[in-house]
Amino acid sequence: MVVVEVSVVPVGTPSASLSEYVAGCVAVLKQAGGITYRLTPMGTIIEGELDRVWEVVRQMHEQPFAKGCARVVTTVRIDDRRDKKLTMDGKVSAVESRLGR
Amino acid sequence: MVVVEVSVVPVGTPSASLSEYVAGCVAVLKQAGGITYRLTPMGTIIEGELDRVWEVVRQMHEQPFAKGCARVVTTVRIDDRRDKKLTMDGKVSAVESRLGR
Amino acid sequence: MVVVEVSVVPVGTPSASLSEYVAGCVAVLKQAGGITYRLTPMGTIIEGELDRVWEVVRQMHEQPFAKGCARVVTTVRIDDRRDKKLTMDGKVSAVESRLGR
Amino acid sequence: MVVVEVSVVPVGTPSASLSEYVAGCVAVLKQAGGITYRLTPMGTIIEGELDRVWEVVRQMHEQPFAKGCARVVTTVRIDDRRDKKLTMDGKVSAVESRLGR
Repeated sequence: MVVVEVSVVPVGTPSASLSEYVAGCVAVLKQAGGITYRLTPMGTIIEGELDRVWEVVRQMHEQPFAKGCARVVTTVRIDDRRDKKLTMDGKVSAVESRLGR
Repeated sequence: MVVVEVSVVPVGTPSASLSEYVAGCVAVLKQAGGITYRLTPMGTIIEGELDRVWEVVRQMHEQPFAKGCARVVTTVRIDDRRDKKLTMDGKVSAVESRLGR
Repeated sequence: MVVVEVSVVPVGTPSASLSEYVAGCVAVLKQAGGITYRLTPMGTIIEGELDRVWEVVRQMHEQPFAKGCARVVTTVRIDDRRDKKLTMDGKVSAVESRLGR
Repeated sequence: MVVVEVSVVPVGTPSASLSEYVAGCVAVLKQAGGITYRLTPMGTIIEGELDRVWEVVRQMHEQPFAKGCARVVTTVRIDDRRDKKLTMDGKVSAVESRLGR
């Protein structure tokens, strides 16, 4: 299990608004099996097996091209820990319990 | 107003667990005026004026050194939009309204 | 053709030096067919077909685990342009020719 | 001394070409005192004191706005090591000497 953050930024779009393209990426995530995800103000975070997550990221990266964009910059940050199970909730809980909440 | 994502990764720590160091960064955010923030499974997201946000990021980056680390890799992604007010909630709402929720 | 930047950061290593792990990643690149690469002070940059580049990144990401690390944070930034051929040299030349004008 | 990688991506530009904007950022670097830099196919890498580097990054981030862009996404990755002097050349040399070149 890995936790992966993905940001897909289309370049050369008609306006500075990107929500249409982000929504296209989230639509991919909604239909994808084998992963869980969370939308954040700076992208999406995905939890699952790394090879499956990559398949999904690959589809997200194609979305702006399908809408007519000529260039896409996609950033993927993979947190892969193998001495214990890593989950989105577990990562946040570990920090919050240290903060005494 | 900008929305900024920050990830602080100490290198050469005694264990693979980083929650102690993330908690130190969140403690900085809790006490910082002039910004709002959100903890995510992959870092923290901060909203505020860019120069103020940088002051806070600068303090977060120092936290692992204060705990004895010799090396820190900090990643900062700045989303700065000036034709309309950018907020963490506004960014997520724009996507969700397109998705029909 | 895409141009992709990769940074592989092992977490919880015995020292703050990472050159051993970076060298392991570069050894993967040296033997990999179908791509070209360049080592920079902040990671490696790879040029090739996206699916092939991912196969190579996948192997790079495994290197620190093979050396005993328990956790790895890998960052991948993909620049994919489809209205013209994107290359590492072409990207730098385009900037330099503008600066020399 | 830190080594910092910077990528400035304007959003909503008239074309998918970004070399004009990258050249504007490199022009800032050429005139900046107190740092050294290197242009790569995926951004620029800067070496110097962290507070000075940030001042320069701040100016780079403003360049696309000065050219009329409404939105800019800037990514900054800071490698800060304090048990030994970190330099761009030293980082690459350490890897190459391990590879036996």
